[in-house]
Amino acid sequence: MSILAVGSIAFDTIKTPFGEVDDIVGGSLTYFALSASFFTEVKLVAVVGEDFGEQQLKLFRGRNIDLQGVAHADGKTFRWGGEYSHNLNSRETLFTELNVFEGFQPELPESYRQADLVFLGNMHPLLQQSVLDQVNHKRVVGMDSMNLWIETTPTELRNVLGRVDIVKIDDSEARDLAGVYNLRKAAAAIQGLGPRMLIATRGSHGAMLFTPQDIFSAPAFPLEDERDPTGAGDCFAGGFFGYLAQAETIDSDTLRRAMIFGSVMGSFCVEDFGTKRLEGLTMDEINTRYRALKQLTQFEDLVTA
Amino acid sequence: MSILAVGSIAFDTIKTPFGEVDDIVGGSLTYFALSASFFTEVKLVAVVGEDFGEQQLKLFRGRNIDLQGVAHADGKTFRWGGEYSHNLNSRETLFTELNVFEGFQPELPESYRQADLVFLGNMHPLLQQSVLDQVNHKRVVGMDSMNLWIETTPTELRNVLGRVDIVKIDDSEARDLAGVYNLRKAAAAIQGLGPRMLIATRGSHGAMLFTPQDIFSAPAFPLEDERDPTGAGDCFAGGFFGYLAQAETIDSDTLRRAMIFGSVMGSFCVEDFGTKRLEGLTMDEINTRYRALKQLTQFEDLVTA
Repeated sequence: MSILAVGSIAFDTIKTPFGEVDDIVGGSLTYFALSASFFTEVKLVAVVGEDFGEQQLKLFRGRNIDLQGVAHADGKTFRWGGEYSHNLNSRETLFTELNVFEGFQPELPESYRQADLVFLGNMHPLLQQSVLDQVNHKRVVGMDSMNLWIETTPTELRNVLGRVDIVKIDDSEARDLAGVYNLRKAAAAIQGLGPRMLIATRGSHGAMLFTPQDIFSAPAFPLEDERDPTGAGDCFAGGFFGYLAQAETIDSDTLRRAMIFGSVMGSFCVEDFGTKRLEGLTMDEINTRYRALKQLTQFEDLVTA
Repeated sequence: MSILAVGSIAFDTIKTPFGEVDDIVGGSLTYFALSASFFTEVKLVAVVGEDFGEQQLKLFRGRNIDLQGVAHADGKTFRWGGEYSHNLNSRETLFTELNVFEGFQPELPESYRQADLVFLGNMHPLLQQSVLDQVNHKRVVGMDSMNLWIETTPTELRNVLGRVDIVKIDDSEARDLAGVYNLRKAAAAIQGLGPRMLIATRGSHGAMLFTPQDIFSAPAFPLEDERDPTGAGDCFAGGFFGYLAQAETIDSDTLRRAMIFGSVMGSFCVEDFGTKRLEGLTMDEINTRYRALKQLTQFEDLVTA
């Protein structure tokens, strides 16, 4: 089955201790789509400006990506700039120019209105709601969010949370959203708001999945060369929901494998600037890293006397 | 086989958001010994003062712990006080009174001089050296250290590193010791100084083992109630080296299981103040948590078409 995904497409300017790039194609939806398209078809809902032409769109062409829902508006595309500290674990936003994103009103093409899986990228909860309102039928809904919305639009965010199945956010954001530091308690509190499941991503420490039945801890692949973490969380989401969308059933085994594919895709993203590593990536490389994560975490059962 | 372990025995005063305790028996060796003694015999090398009598020693009695190498010196026992922030991830040292530890010159009883496994707890590298010098025969040597020695006694520390097999330190200390942020590169740099293996502990994010052959990532058990992290790293070391000491061979499977037992013992330690949780702990509870960590990380192999 396919994924309907809404989010940002942007021009990013990124500085890390390992180099810098200007005005490359980025945005949460770009990373999500490139990642998920390895597993299933992704139908994009987004807006770009007049400065976003065929040269930029070719990043998406030739992949399992439907661009019908990408609106072209008058004005400039969303722009973001950020700089990372020496350890890549903290970043400073240098500028944010919303541009055409400011007036964005998602409008779904007719062919998008039956969706098996809907992913609501990190954006104003009212925009997320608006996308959900336009989908007649959906099986699974996932969402991302961030501190900005937790702090400034708590009521609207709770309304969206009441309508989704799986939330994927940073562990620190999960703690803020729940108002409790302990991650198990935070997960239980978030599950109380509606979503059956929480994925708490932890950067280079991996990610955890909380379901009503159990907890799963996915490791991060220990990279030898990390260059740019931009988009890693979105690539994780793309791998997770992409794998889930093409699975026949959603059970504990499928969810665990989806978490590992999420971790795999996030790790590739960090290996080069922007979307560069994803562009040349192959399914063979993805499967090889999946096996490496298996090797990284495997240990023998306890022998009972 | 047994473990010869050197480290501190202390009176600790601990404040966390969940309570406080005054002058309880603590110190790195206390935690290490209680933890390791579930798996094998531990011969202690330490010093205590006149204020440390039978009432305190009974914490060690009835366990697989040899107290012959615990010297009783004139003066007061080492005292330490610390306070943790709301999330238990950062702590402030309130006071450190070295007392009898200041003049500590480890002297091994004759029966200690043949040791299968030696563990050098976190202390001045010259004291660690002195213990090693007194052991005639040893199979495996492990050590702990901290930023203080990395910064103030780099030469002495390197001399010890050249004589040990396995270093167990925090990931941030591994980075400082190696002078490089990337953990894989830091591990390689530390292995270049002598030790074949590095265990980098990461608090509530688990721990990683770097050997010449491979990397293993052990999860932390996601606790619902965390009260006091004091000694968790020492309990990890106790579980790891304790399990290793009683294993017939040291191979990849054994090392991985040892890491899991390390994580298990560290997680119990955090559940209550000081050594309280360890005192009533049973091997059944340890094995149950081992299985829980298996369940937490288990996922299916990739099916190749």
